Amino acid sequence: MKFYDCATAPSPRRVRIFAAEKGIELDTVQVDLSSGEQFGDAFCAINPDCVVPALVLDDGTCLSEVTAICQYLEEHKPDPTLWGSDAATRALTTMWHVKVDQQGLAAIADVFRNTAKGMKGRALPGPDDYEQIPELAERGRQRVYNFFEKLDRQLASNEFVAGGRFTIADISALVFVDFARRAKIDPPQTLDNLARWYQAVSSRPSAAA
Amino acid sequence: MKFYDCATAPSPRRVRIFAAEKGIELDTVQVDLSSGEQFGDAFCAINPDCVVPALVLDDGTCLSEVTAICQYLEEHKPDPTLWGSDAATRALTTMWHVKVDQQGLAAIADVFRNTAKGMKGRALPGPDDYEQIPELAERGRQRVYNFFEKLDRQLASNEFVAGGRFTIADISALVFVDFARRAKIDPPQTLDNLARWYQAVSSRPSAAA
Repeated sequence: MKFYDCATAPSPRRVRIFAAEKGIELDTVQVDLSSGEQFGDAFCAINPDCVVPALVLDDGTCLSEVTAICQYLEEHKPDPTLWGSDAATRALTTMWHVKVDQQGLAAIADVFRNTAKGMKGRALPGPDDYEQIPELAERGRQRVYNFFEKLDRQLASNEFVAGGRFTIADISALVFVDFARRAKIDPPQTLDNLARWYQAVSSRPSAAA
Repeated sequence: MKFYDCATAPSPRRVRIFAAEKGIELDTVQVDLSSGEQFGDAFCAINPDCVVPALVLDDGTCLSEVTAICQYLEEHKPDPTLWGSDAATRALTTMWHVKVDQQGLAAIADVFRNTAKGMKGRALPGPDDYEQIPELAERGRQRVYNFFEKLDRQLASNEFVAGGRFTIADISALVFVDFARRAKIDPPQTLDNLARWYQAVSSRPSAAA
């Protein structure tokens, strides 16, 4: 397996943390997003979607999308599980992982991609160009705050995002909060449950990945 | 199990088709989205996200998000599989399912929710109100056409969206194309592979679900 990464980008970090929690050492290739290497012929031949992360299996199959890559790694090395030990728990983990992805990470990506000067004409990842929409950044900011509150409510009665154990949903949520902080959107200090959880998950050795 | 559905909405249709392909009969409750029943106290107590589909398990656990519900049904009744028979195939299915979800269905939802008069102030599903952004509808339209082309390229060398067998990725893609057609965005007639695939999947008995 070969893992195509970018050390500074949030999406591949989700896979790095996932692999670190599992004790999987990935054979990693850095793709330089700052110089546009992802749009070059060499990388597009590997992943026509021109995004990292991508995981190329030994038979040449290229997996992109964080969820697909992590699902493969979960089957490749089931212990420790980062999804759960029965069907209902695994489904709840997926549910929260999807909510973090679509309500949290998508919202902060909307803020970043629709405001950053370097993202002009690049408001969405992938090979197609889309202009920035300032109103979408503003909506994204509102959504990030709403999602901080949703996480806090969930964490009031659960140690981790999807229940009683650390899962992929915590990894996605940690990367969401850190991505928001980079954009100077910090969780309100009144959200004690979120603060308690953040302290715990960001202290795990995997968070440095 | 109890399935909370809305017969006219695209998201729960994905679960209905999935269950039909598996031969699972769901005990179904219709939620009347047109009258706002999803925001009423009774339904919000079941699913605080105020969206359908939702699947409530016998122990009271509420699963929302199409992917989580279908994953649960896949484990509940593994045959016939709608994900694949080995780890790499299952991961490829998830990859395409996510692409259809985020690049196809999200784009047509942007068109619909940012233009429909009945969606004023309701540009996103869930309990929070967001104003419509006309530029987002226009971007969504471009993205839908780009995604039609991506599907057509993939289907040039694959019988189904994720490879050689019918999977959840085909279900998501069928619902995407039908949702786009309702918004009067038809696939260009030049996309022969997409047309061939659509003819095949829309003729399956499950498509009536």
